Amino acid sequence: MNMKLSVSTESDDQLFERMEKKLYTGVICDTLDELGYRNQAMNERLRPLVNEYVIVGRAKTILAVDVYYENDNPYEMEIKSLDSIKPGEVAVVCTNQSKNNGIWGELLSTAAKMRGGRGAIVDGLIRDTKKIVELGFPVFCAGFKPVDSRGRGLVVDYDCPVEVGGILVKPGDVIFADRDGVAVIPSQVLHETVQKAVEKVERENNTRRELLEGKLLKDVYEKYGVL
Amino acid sequence: MNMKLSVSTESDDQLFERMEKKLYTGVICDTLDELGYRNQAMNERLRPLVNEYVIVGRAKTILAVDVYYENDNPYEMEIKSLDSIKPGEVAVVCTNQSKNNGIWGELLSTAAKMRGGRGAIVDGLIRDTKKIVELGFPVFCAGFKPVDSRGRGLVVDYDCPVEVGGILVKPGDVIFADRDGVAVIPSQVLHETVQKAVEKVERENNTRRELLEGKLLKDVYEKYGVL
Amino acid sequence: MNMKLSVSTESDDQLFERMEKKLYTGVICDTLDELGYRNQAMNERLRPLVNEYVIVGRAKTILAVDVYYENDNPYEMEIKSLDSIKPGEVAVVCTNQSKNNGIWGELLSTAAKMRGGRGAIVDGLIRDTKKIVELGFPVFCAGFKPVDSRGRGLVVDYDCPVEVGGILVKPGDVIFADRDGVAVIPSQVLHETVQKAVEKVERENNTRRELLEGKLLKDVYEKYGVL
Amino acid sequence: MNMKLSVSTESDDQLFERMEKKLYTGVICDTLDELGYRNQAMNERLRPLVNEYVIVGRAKTILAVDVYYENDNPYEMEIKSLDSIKPGEVAVVCTNQSKNNGIWGELLSTAAKMRGGRGAIVDGLIRDTKKIVELGFPVFCAGFKPVDSRGRGLVVDYDCPVEVGGILVKPGDVIFADRDGVAVIPSQVLHETVQKAVEKVERENNTRRELLEGKLLKDVYEKYGVL
Amino acid sequence: MNMKLSVSTESDDQLFERMEKKLYTGVICDTLDELGYRNQAMNERLRPLVNEYVIVGRAKTILAVDVYYENDNPYEMEIKSLDSIKPGEVAVVCTNQSKNNGIWGELLSTAAKMRGGRGAIVDGLIRDTKKIVELGFPVFCAGFKPVDSRGRGLVVDYDCPVEVGGILVKPGDVIFADRDGVAVIPSQVLHETVQKAVEKVERENNTRRELLEGKLLKDVYEKYGVL
Amino acid sequence: MNMKLSVSTESDDQLFERMEKKLYTGVICDTLDELGYRNQAMNERLRPLVNEYVIVGRAKTILAVDVYYENDNPYEMEIKSLDSIKPGEVAVVCTNQSKNNGIWGELLSTAAKMRGGRGAIVDGLIRDTKKIVELGFPVFCAGFKPVDSRGRGLVVDYDCPVEVGGILVKPGDVIFADRDGVAVIPSQVLHETVQKAVEKVERENNTRRELLEGKLLKDVYEKYGVL
Repeated sequence: MNMKLSVSTESDDQLFERMEKKLYTGVICDTLDELGYRNQAMNERLRPLVNEYVIVGRAKTILAVDVYYENDNPYEMEIKSLDSIKPGEVAVVCTNQSKNNGIWGELLSTAAKMRGGRGAIVDGLIRDTKKIVELGFPVFCAGFKPVDSRGRGLVVDYDCPVEVGGILVKPGDVIFADRDGVAVIPSQVLHETVQKAVEKVERENNTRRELLEGKLLKDVYEKYGVL
Repeated sequence: MNMKLSVSTESDDQLFERMEKKLYTGVICDTLDELGYRNQAMNERLRPLVNEYVIVGRAKTILAVDVYYENDNPYEMEIKSLDSIKPGEVAVVCTNQSKNNGIWGELLSTAAKMRGGRGAIVDGLIRDTKKIVELGFPVFCAGFKPVDSRGRGLVVDYDCPVEVGGILVKPGDVIFADRDGVAVIPSQVLHETVQKAVEKVERENNTRRELLEGKLLKDVYEKYGVL
Repeated sequence: MNMKLSVSTESDDQLFERMEKKLYTGVICDTLDELGYRNQAMNERLRPLVNEYVIVGRAKTILAVDVYYENDNPYEMEIKSLDSIKPGEVAVVCTNQSKNNGIWGELLSTAAKMRGGRGAIVDGLIRDTKKIVELGFPVFCAGFKPVDSRGRGLVVDYDCPVEVGGILVKPGDVIFADRDGVAVIPSQVLHETVQKAVEKVERENNTRRELLEGKLLKDVYEKYGVL
Repeated sequence: MNMKLSVSTESDDQLFERMEKKLYTGVICDTLDELGYRNQAMNERLRPLVNEYVIVGRAKTILAVDVYYENDNPYEMEIKSLDSIKPGEVAVVCTNQSKNNGIWGELLSTAAKMRGGRGAIVDGLIRDTKKIVELGFPVFCAGFKPVDSRGRGLVVDYDCPVEVGGILVKPGDVIFADRDGVAVIPSQVLHETVQKAVEKVERENNTRRELLEGKLLKDVYEKYGVL
Repeated sequence: MNMKLSVSTESDDQLFERMEKKLYTGVICDTLDELGYRNQAMNERLRPLVNEYVIVGRAKTILAVDVYYENDNPYEMEIKSLDSIKPGEVAVVCTNQSKNNGIWGELLSTAAKMRGGRGAIVDGLIRDTKKIVELGFPVFCAGFKPVDSRGRGLVVDYDCPVEVGGILVKPGDVIFADRDGVAVIPSQVLHETVQKAVEKVERENNTRRELLEGKLLKDVYEKYGVL
Repeated sequence: MNMKLSVSTESDDQLFERMEKKLYTGVICDTLDELGYRNQAMNERLRPLVNEYVIVGRAKTILAVDVYYENDNPYEMEIKSLDSIKPGEVAVVCTNQSKNNGIWGELLSTAAKMRGGRGAIVDGLIRDTKKIVELGFPVFCAGFKPVDSRGRGLVVDYDCPVEVGGILVKPGDVIFADRDGVAVIPSQVLHETVQKAVEKVERENNTRRELLEGKLLKDVYEKYGVL
């Protein structure tokens, strides 16, 4: 696999675009299953603001916690984490499943987008949804709440391991999110996953085509071994 | 009622089309209430993939359970149950409210559709939602998860009583599902339910018309006794 | 503030229209925070039937409870409460988070609309969603269930304090609801809230504009103090 | 069964004492299963204050609801319901699963006991637990909260059908509660249930004895058909 | 009230001992209700390790959060917070309702006790329960988990406002906890609460005595106005 | 480690007795943490029938699922699984968190005990608790329900991987359960875990002793590095 990485001339951006066009979370997860990574799909509470959103990118992790008073500098770490987003990254925000505040909103979306961010996965509540949709910055979240994080939530760290949607995400893991949910691809198996997933898509196409011709599931499954 | 059944010249398919056009879950449930069947609406977690979906058909029940290892033949019963779907049937899948896997997906939808299935009610999570929507096969479910059932969920029986959305469904019961939820019509009161429901729709039309003319709810309710 | 109220020549209706056009729940809640009202946003389970809905109006509170038998006059208080809705009001229905019945539906929506009601916030389940959407009467709710309230839910009081979405709402409080959620503005700070919120919108516009010019969040926040 | 009832010379009190001594919820529920009443055991959240409590008696149903303001006469119906308890009865309190207040306490326990009440099943929270235990009045509940019902909960009816622990209880049904949970015996099958349950106890004794002799479960089950 | 405070010659310790002997959470909460503090009882998930525990003392607040990696100095703030406990204080630990780790255990209990701590209220899970009971240090908690906080939970602040059991607790508020739950007495109304509560106990004693003499609840309530 | 296993002359039974006497779940989990097994403690819903219970033994896994009809031979696999329990084993029952029935009871406890079983961990509800306690067979469970599994739950497999309390348990893993919860020791690290845990107990004893002498937590932690 190291060899494969070294000879690849495809940039992260090119790879992510290719993945976005050719793959989907289902085939990604099936491939991760085959590779022995069976717990890589986030909890179903993470939903896209718009059904058509697809996000592929490197995880930029952010850790926020609930607090009950206002710090002197409540936005300090939040601002640092946003301003350090790099092109190709996806903000992956752990709030320990807070329901207290809308930790993410339009201004953070705008800031993330201008740094080259490809989207955000927020395991908490967000606000400014109308403006975020107009901005065209894809966000997945666990719900909505119009109150600010000031005095309610605090970013305490970033670029650290976090648990989002019940899955441990490390900085640099690759996020693949679409209407079915959010998958986390460990960085060390990214290229192997993509290659095998592309092959599996082909087999599924065959299965689908023969089913549409009216064949029994039994016969088609026996032939292609895909379901 | 037996007599009524014997003289009816309407096929199941014709009946279901007529129900789909004229009725809706609210009036179905009101009628079942009148007939003494007061617990026939599934839990609100069952939602349509697309708001406009309406499903009417005979319940084809399937019982799946969570497992934690891979059987030799993990899809055997699943394939059998799918291949035995008959025209006019609706797959009604009990998973004991599993959140572990996407038990239903595009390929099962395709197989069900090609056998004449009219839709699926899955009290669990599903995947391949984009392709299912494109296929035009209506599915109601409790959420989404992109991981396969292999090694996570197992179909252990079908054509047996199941509990779906908190309601006991027997093979042959009639499912009526729309944007408001999912109702289960016991097969023995199907024709009586349809007949009375059609009548009730008329009374509701009168209530609505007079309310839109500006009359007080009190006066309109006293006149028609419908709310 | 009393003085301000006395000189205002703007009617409730004009004020609500202006709020609907210029404001949104996020800026309302931020302003309420500043004024020391930090717990005015309802639980995230309250969602609009249609994402684009915006409701602004005076709370017309209704208190319903679960029952397990049919009263002689099951709709008496419900009818009274509906028929006494005044123009500019919003039905705010407490059901103690019932999941037993669809307490609100098309006919109540029609009745409320004809009295001049501006919408409904139902902390429970509703039905007839398709017809409610067609009617153009905005409703926020906690989910859907096609069964009637008869013998399941009972309106026991109205124009009394209720808890809806976890927030105590008093008759006359002003509701502001949009895609991000539902905010409750205590009547005594309505005008102050609107005035300050309008000003805050301006500052947010500046922040957004400079972010879109590519400036760092740090610099923009230091300049405008808004996030 | 009518005949059986007419010839029985056993008073309710004698019957309840006999049941308390000889029977337990498990064998009661098994017998109800045999008679076709398969949904008669309350939700597991109902727990006794003291593990050793056993309650047998006629259901005196009470319906309370959450409110958010103080009525003129907040305790009126509560007092009436308590003062009308008759010997042999068990208070069965529905609160629609309220977590807002301690609806039951020491003084109500004292009042109920002095009227001849045999215990209370409260599907809500209670308070004064230490004093209730000292009083020797058995109470099952869903938890504890030290705040009063005044301005939080209100008894709105009694001697009416209620849902407690997820089970519909009608006035006069017989409650059997012990460390395993709470069973509801419909009044019309009370004597049949007791008679069959007493017989089943005997068969279970045989099974237990032979198991304790070291026999395999398979052999003992084949012999007695009890598990 | 200031006057009252200035003339009181009772130390905190003496006051707490007197409260522990004469009062209980029910009467504390009723008195706080009368004083207009109606939301001072923690969620029912907070339970004592041993039913007989009673804790009275000043809140020493501690704020812990879930993390997913090990800091260099994971116990730093935890140790500081424990070592700064003063006689008469009660550790009040917010974990944002974590279920991830046993944040409190025997060694912390020992340390807290040796500093003069009067108990701990932990809105999270704890471990070493057997040894804590043997130590005789009263702890209330939301459950048990045998895993350490290292790499799972982190104390991030102390002596700050926290939310515990759903109630905002400020440093210096007085905790009163017994078998019925946990009440929080704001420090500014401590003496008024104690004085009024002691009086109310007397009225309740009268009510109880007359009920035990067999009087109707109606008559006794009319006489004493206590329920 | 293989060597260590081969030279050990201690039987499983002797080892389990030693563990029961010297160790507890907290120190077991800390040791597993050190060995890199950080997710080995079951969910806190698993509680002992009696606080003093301690169970140590090899996992005998059983997989049960909810069903909604009666099979011809409903107890077949259940009986087989029970009759095949070997001395030193602990029944570890997965029900997929069923709340439908009391899957475990007195007769199964008796059968398990007579085969040499050391206890049961049931991630579901149980019944016959009074008799189970009298029998002296330690059981941990998630709650209580007096209804039989017949027609509600079905054992479908045993000696297979199961998920109990959220933890994957394989046949032969070692269960250690006490008042703090239930830990699962993978069989391949059993001896290493025991050895290291015994050593850690010693260090904790030192920490405790010095704390009881009044030393600050900071100083004691710096000396022993144990908390």
